[in-house]
Amino acid sequence: MRDIAVFSGGAHTELAEEICSYLSVPLLPSRVARFANDCLEVQLQANCRERDVYLIQPLVPPVQEHLVELLLLLDAARGASAARITVVMPHYAYARSDKKDAPRISIGARLVADLLATAGANRVLTMTLHSPQVHGFFSVPVDHLHALRELAAHFTGYDLSNTVVVSPDLGNAKASASFARMLGTDVAAGAKQRFTDDRVSISSIIGDVGGKDVIVLDDEIAKGSTVLELLDRLRERGAKSIRVATTHGLFSSGALDKLQAQDDVLEIVCTNTVPIGKEKFVPKLTVLSIAPAMAEAIRRIHNGESVSALFDQP
Amino acid sequence: MRDIAVFSGGAHTELAEEICSYLSVPLLPSRVARFANDCLEVQLQANCRERDVYLIQPLVPPVQEHLVELLLLLDAARGASAARITVVMPHYAYARSDKKDAPRISIGARLVADLLATAGANRVLTMTLHSPQVHGFFSVPVDHLHALRELAAHFTGYDLSNTVVVSPDLGNAKASASFARMLGTDVAAGAKQRFTDDRVSISSIIGDVGGKDVIVLDDEIAKGSTVLELLDRLRERGAKSIRVATTHGLFSSGALDKLQAQDDVLEIVCTNTVPIGKEKFVPKLTVLSIAPAMAEAIRRIHNGESVSALFDQP
Amino acid sequence: MRDIAVFSGGAHTELAEEICSYLSVPLLPSRVARFANDCLEVQLQANCRERDVYLIQPLVPPVQEHLVELLLLLDAARGASAARITVVMPHYAYARSDKKDAPRISIGARLVADLLATAGANRVLTMTLHSPQVHGFFSVPVDHLHALRELAAHFTGYDLSNTVVVSPDLGNAKASASFARMLGTDVAAGAKQRFTDDRVSISSIIGDVGGKDVIVLDDEIAKGSTVLELLDRLRERGAKSIRVATTHGLFSSGALDKLQAQDDVLEIVCTNTVPIGKEKFVPKLTVLSIAPAMAEAIRRIHNGESVSALFDQP
Amino acid sequence: MRDIAVFSGGAHTELAEEICSYLSVPLLPSRVARFANDCLEVQLQANCRERDVYLIQPLVPPVQEHLVELLLLLDAARGASAARITVVMPHYAYARSDKKDAPRISIGARLVADLLATAGANRVLTMTLHSPQVHGFFSVPVDHLHALRELAAHFTGYDLSNTVVVSPDLGNAKASASFARMLGTDVAAGAKQRFTDDRVSISSIIGDVGGKDVIVLDDEIAKGSTVLELLDRLRERGAKSIRVATTHGLFSSGALDKLQAQDDVLEIVCTNTVPIGKEKFVPKLTVLSIAPAMAEAIRRIHNGESVSALFDQP
Amino acid sequence: MRDIAVFSGGAHTELAEEICSYLSVPLLPSRVARFANDCLEVQLQANCRERDVYLIQPLVPPVQEHLVELLLLLDAARGASAARITVVMPHYAYARSDKKDAPRISIGARLVADLLATAGANRVLTMTLHSPQVHGFFSVPVDHLHALRELAAHFTGYDLSNTVVVSPDLGNAKASASFARMLGTDVAAGAKQRFTDDRVSISSIIGDVGGKDVIVLDDEIAKGSTVLELLDRLRERGAKSIRVATTHGLFSSGALDKLQAQDDVLEIVCTNTVPIGKEKFVPKLTVLSIAPAMAEAIRRIHNGESVSALFDQP
Amino acid sequence: MRDIAVFSGGAHTELAEEICSYLSVPLLPSRVARFANDCLEVQLQANCRERDVYLIQPLVPPVQEHLVELLLLLDAARGASAARITVVMPHYAYARSDKKDAPRISIGARLVADLLATAGANRVLTMTLHSPQVHGFFSVPVDHLHALRELAAHFTGYDLSNTVVVSPDLGNAKASASFARMLGTDVAAGAKQRFTDDRVSISSIIGDVGGKDVIVLDDEIAKGSTVLELLDRLRERGAKSIRVATTHGLFSSGALDKLQAQDDVLEIVCTNTVPIGKEKFVPKLTVLSIAPAMAEAIRRIHNGESVSALFDQP
Repeated sequence: MRDIAVFSGGAHTELAEEICSYLSVPLLPSRVARFANDCLEVQLQANCRERDVYLIQPLVPPVQEHLVELLLLLDAARGASAARITVVMPHYAYARSDKKDAPRISIGARLVADLLATAGANRVLTMTLHSPQVHGFFSVPVDHLHALRELAAHFTGYDLSNTVVVSPDLGNAKASASFARMLGTDVAAGAKQRFTDDRVSISSIIGDVGGKDVIVLDDEIAKGSTVLELLDRLRERGAKSIRVATTHGLFSSGALDKLQAQDDVLEIVCTNTVPIGKEKFVPKLTVLSIAPAMAEAIRRIHNGESVSALFDQP
Repeated sequence: MRDIAVFSGGAHTELAEEICSYLSVPLLPSRVARFANDCLEVQLQANCRERDVYLIQPLVPPVQEHLVELLLLLDAARGASAARITVVMPHYAYARSDKKDAPRISIGARLVADLLATAGANRVLTMTLHSPQVHGFFSVPVDHLHALRELAAHFTGYDLSNTVVVSPDLGNAKASASFARMLGTDVAAGAKQRFTDDRVSISSIIGDVGGKDVIVLDDEIAKGSTVLELLDRLRERGAKSIRVATTHGLFSSGALDKLQAQDDVLEIVCTNTVPIGKEKFVPKLTVLSIAPAMAEAIRRIHNGESVSALFDQP
Repeated sequence: MRDIAVFSGGAHTELAEEICSYLSVPLLPSRVARFANDCLEVQLQANCRERDVYLIQPLVPPVQEHLVELLLLLDAARGASAARITVVMPHYAYARSDKKDAPRISIGARLVADLLATAGANRVLTMTLHSPQVHGFFSVPVDHLHALRELAAHFTGYDLSNTVVVSPDLGNAKASASFARMLGTDVAAGAKQRFTDDRVSISSIIGDVGGKDVIVLDDEIAKGSTVLELLDRLRERGAKSIRVATTHGLFSSGALDKLQAQDDVLEIVCTNTVPIGKEKFVPKLTVLSIAPAMAEAIRRIHNGESVSALFDQP
Repeated sequence: MRDIAVFSGGAHTELAEEICSYLSVPLLPSRVARFANDCLEVQLQANCRERDVYLIQPLVPPVQEHLVELLLLLDAARGASAARITVVMPHYAYARSDKKDAPRISIGARLVADLLATAGANRVLTMTLHSPQVHGFFSVPVDHLHALRELAAHFTGYDLSNTVVVSPDLGNAKASASFARMLGTDVAAGAKQRFTDDRVSISSIIGDVGGKDVIVLDDEIAKGSTVLELLDRLRERGAKSIRVATTHGLFSSGALDKLQAQDDVLEIVCTNTVPIGKEKFVPKLTVLSIAPAMAEAIRRIHNGESVSALFDQP
Repeated sequence: MRDIAVFSGGAHTELAEEICSYLSVPLLPSRVARFANDCLEVQLQANCRERDVYLIQPLVPPVQEHLVELLLLLDAARGASAARITVVMPHYAYARSDKKDAPRISIGARLVADLLATAGANRVLTMTLHSPQVHGFFSVPVDHLHALRELAAHFTGYDLSNTVVVSPDLGNAKASASFARMLGTDVAAGAKQRFTDDRVSISSIIGDVGGKDVIVLDDEIAKGSTVLELLDRLRERGAKSIRVATTHGLFSSGALDKLQAQDDVLEIVCTNTVPIGKEKFVPKLTVLSIAPAMAEAIRRIHNGESVSALFDQP
Repeated sequence: MRDIAVFSGGAHTELAEEICSYLSVPLLPSRVARFANDCLEVQLQANCRERDVYLIQPLVPPVQEHLVELLLLLDAARGASAARITVVMPHYAYARSDKKDAPRISIGARLVADLLATAGANRVLTMTLHSPQVHGFFSVPVDHLHALRELAAHFTGYDLSNTVVVSPDLGNAKASASFARMLGTDVAAGAKQRFTDDRVSISSIIGDVGGKDVIVLDDEIAKGSTVLELLDRLRERGAKSIRVATTHGLFSSGALDKLQAQDDVLEIVCTNTVPIGKEKFVPKLTVLSIAPAMAEAIRRIHNGESVSALFDQP
């Protein structure tokens, strides 16, 4: 079997190191040079000829820098005769640009999928895409993981007898329902209606939350405004305590500080698909690692074992 | 400017005739031969060299026959030196296969989009895709219309002072909200939750429907089970009267008869994106024509005028 | 070496089972679902990641259903990270649409070859293409077998001292000549002239057939009209007995019953590239299996051994 | 409408000049330089930006030089922003390599078709391909003319009351039959059987030739061995006089001298798809020009008029 | 003729405005939104259906932002049915990454050329590529201008009787020689030798510069270290006065201040292919506009007139 | 691991034999047939299914014949199911056509790179490309060797205490500097200026050559005019003795005889990337073999070992 060779771009080397540690392989060195004219040049500093190459790079801010760096990494690996190149992209930020909801706009999720293939990607390993249709934007095979297992393991130690999982958005409540099954709890959902372009309102909550310990589950939290609005609805309905859980903790625009400031929010749980700067940390924050899951997926991809078998929902 | 040349496959010649009538151009003849070994051969029976060619073929049952016929039409037009080929596909049935929700399944919506491009499609004109992301599955430009204007025009003659538009699925309520704005009515939505693989339940209705004249709006109705379940909820909540409106009236498995049999259903309104056999007609059914809209879109595509300008929502 | 994984579409599972039996591998399960809107969805129900995948599907009636099903199988296998996908297509019905003999017609044999590649086919294994040029329509490698060895083995037990092999069409007499060499007999051929579009006549037979035991050999028999016309010519020239042999026994439009009804036709021999419904069977029919040959070709393709070495003509 | 721009490679400038003369457009200058290392460089010496460009180059000996020159012409025209590039290739020599009749051989007809597309060809205009299937080897639209009209016009002035058209090969007798209909004569055909790799024999002639004035029609004559063998058969059957007609007069290996030396051959007629060196001319040779037909086809392609309408067989 | 539609990304709107002014067409509005997760979305805010679209975006710092923005603009224009899309990229920064001078590095110039084509570029208009070979990295037609005419016009007003043009690098002296011919002056060149990886030295000047008024000409000046070293050599050889001219004035790392500080440098002349922030301006700097040249090239591309005819060197 | 299979075209079978000898593998037989119409057909006469195939063919005169032969070899290998095909092209003659220095010319280096990929090349192994940018013209991975090690080994036996390496062209002096470091000598360079299209002059030599033993190093010598002009300059400057070294010894137009006739030229050294006919040999000529280097590179490519590690410059 072709040997494995793992490289990382600059987006999240800490995660890359951790994945390699679980794989018991070294994170191979690469170099990104920036020229006087601001162009980037990438060098893979270990042989990858006929190797099974993995390039770890979530598309996190600054997204454009990390995207072009990833494209150059792909070009370098292809030019260096890699046998197969898998992009390991735990967070695919451009997945949100997945439809043409105004005239003459770009569909970034499809474009970036095509750019990755042009640059040499043979396959993609990613986690919790914003919409499941984005899978179909790629012309190369995609392994699409989720982090429910990791999140569930975290909450299992708690007394969940009075708990309900709440999805902010009924349209995407499927993941919350799976999560509730994992925890053996009930499920509820906010009914998010977007009736005009400039007004988003959550007018209702489906399911019983009064006097309950609530776990809010969302795929990603950026500015956090949807979650904050949901908290208001939960309070109106008499929720007892609130925990917030998410896969992609982008936490832009002071979202973490705002959530920390809510008295009834006991805990904020996210994974490390997105790096969180030390300066952002707040006491209520818990970061779970998806490195073991990514490492296991890489191992199975490398060995030709079923990935879906591992991550099937209960 | 290159001349226009419109052909139709066998899926819906009546609609093709009507579109051509609005365009004041002839529907050019084509021939589909079936050989002894069941293979199809297509011949375009009018010159289409350097013409701006439109091939009208919704993907309606028998879908596979109509799909392969469309692919052969594309091949024939390309081989005959068409300047540009636009697939006019008012109903894209494969749009429902838009995600990989089980291991090792096909994503038909992406595959068929690629097949159309391989066979020679330069662009696609379609209507009310099941999910807006399917737009991004195509590598060629897509003009994506909706039929709200036609449906609204139908209801404008009614007394709408006590009316509410209801979407069966809150996740896709955006179209219903637009429709309600067009009619000047309120909007409500079913909260469809799919908690397990084998149980679909609508546990709630968001918004007030008691004593109201309801217009249920859905993108397509096939077996009709979702709508029928919604009707139960509406009755429980005291709806006064019910009308059902949809773009794609597939009406399989006796759906029309079932809806006709509901006493409080006053009317079933659909468009002619899908042909409805005479034997299926029921007294409560009204079929609106999208031929004028498709014709106007073709005219604008041909003349290089903005299509979005025409179909912008109010 | 990558493991082998064999799946079958719905066209001819009996043949697929038999091939797998010769390969001593299981026929892996797949599922074809048909939705309310008549679209198909395919699921491969066994892991095929990094496997050497073979999809068995002859293009037999209903051809369009089986073709689209095959394209979806390819898409599913590619999306499921198959290492290599070989389409095993013992009968390629669209091979007959191989030229543009009228203006603006489709060339189905080329189009379908391109569609298969678009959907993910890496190679094709097929048998007895209608014209050898069709091989060049594929952009992927093709292994093109014939069934002469199987047919010859059947006739070897007979007394062939007075036998002549007759090709209905002199233009394609090469296969008949090879067959005659295998059997150690003489060869003759009908001279089929197609002078006008609506009149086909066999005006002559080249070679001596008077008083001979004739074996008619054709690549495929659909309606059987060519063979029936040849029989008239053979009788006029005093043939003593007649056997009919063919690779692809499509036998449409009652062809088997018509051949059975000919008194001087002693036997009709075909292979199982095309499934023959039980209701079609007639007493004079003998069906030979090409499963051993297909299995051996698959084994050699999988192991990287020469396929041509096996199937060289004597 | 985009202007027309016609260039010629070095294969047959005389024909290019003649075509341009019929089109009333100048043959634009181009330059082919050969460097010290034997590489070619092509320059188009007139503006072809946004022009409708035609590159005239039959693939005649030295074929490899002319093929690479044509590929470089295509590259130059594409790089110079031609709006559309049509390869005008009256003789496509590689069409004979159209099948894989031995293991591990090249299929030149498909390869060269792909090379032309890679180099920038948008369409192809050619004449009398060796087999009609070669049309399907091209991924770009092909206009495929024949020269029967020109050949028929030549013979119309003769007394044809006792004439029969004879095809050397029954398998390809369709063109001869069309030709006979044009002339109002009978048709006959040699029955060419190729039973072993090293022996080709024409064992028979189908149809009556005794006492007849024969016109032998073949698509191309290279060494002429097939025609010379046919002449023996015709003499055995008492043909009265013989004329030989062909589209592509390659006449290699002294073929013209050998035909000239046959007393009963009254005339050898070919077209100018292939240039015939002055030193090859023999008294019995007549060369007809296909320049008017090619010019008319180019005119129609340029103007978007039907080409098939012009060249339909009667 | 299709109408022209010009849009600009955010890299250099001032230049875009100026080009449009020379073309007498409006610069059409576009919008670049940045989402909470740092992804960009582009909207073209004017109809570009069937238009001849020009997207103006030099790849200047921040290069990655401007590159991704350009790719999204291309995607939007293609999706909006532009008839043809020309990337107007006056400075192609990635052209410097044009070779693999170390193992396993990216070749950015080729990669970005491929990305532009993937995103929808049909052609490219650029100026003074770092090496002429980069032209060949593009799979789409490229119009490659230079700015010598503009630079020469500037110096024509001077007394050039004692002037010599000096190229810093003999290897690229061709442009300097052309420039000297335009001005009617002599030419000289530095002999830049790079003998080791870490030492660059200009050991010599070929040609006479003693007592001369020197115009140093270089394609681009970034940090300016090469030019500053050349100045030392010129002084050693007794140059009387020095002017510095360049096409691409990147002027990073305080290059302008350093040049301004040289007493014998009378003037620094560049063009506006790269925007120069007001804070960078120094008294000796003169910026010439290439907007008229770009506008004329666009006009000729749009009208199908020869571009090379305009920019031929004398 | 897949077995290796090495074939050669007709360009340089002697080199291919020698490479195979170093690899201890047989040179597998192939056959090139030329038909009556001058077309070529290639047959690989050994199984290459799932093999790691190497096709050895430098592009040497007659270049067009050898190029088309190579393309057909590629097509045959792909059609025969090779697992991977590496073109071993020690001399890539078309590399010189690498830029568009006149309007509407072909860029042969890019075109041929694309043709090779179209015909089936998966990778390329080449030596000393005329300009390093040509590497980027290929869409497939390229291993680019040089012959400095072989040339240096040859001169190591000499007394080099008074030796200087001279590059004819300062622009390409990097290789000469590397070579001088290998030999431990000084380096100098001609300053080749090409000021007008019709006049090339070397006006200067940078570095000290008086009284020195000179080794002139150039990448290729065709007509030899550049080297001969350099010799004049060296004599003017008092060089003591001269040796000429080059990788690609094309030696056209009597170049070898001219160099042999120079009294102060003691030796002419080249490699065998280009075959040198026996009739060209002159007494002063020494031909070094690059077969060991090519064989080692092939071995490493086959085994997935680093190629750059081997050929790094000191």
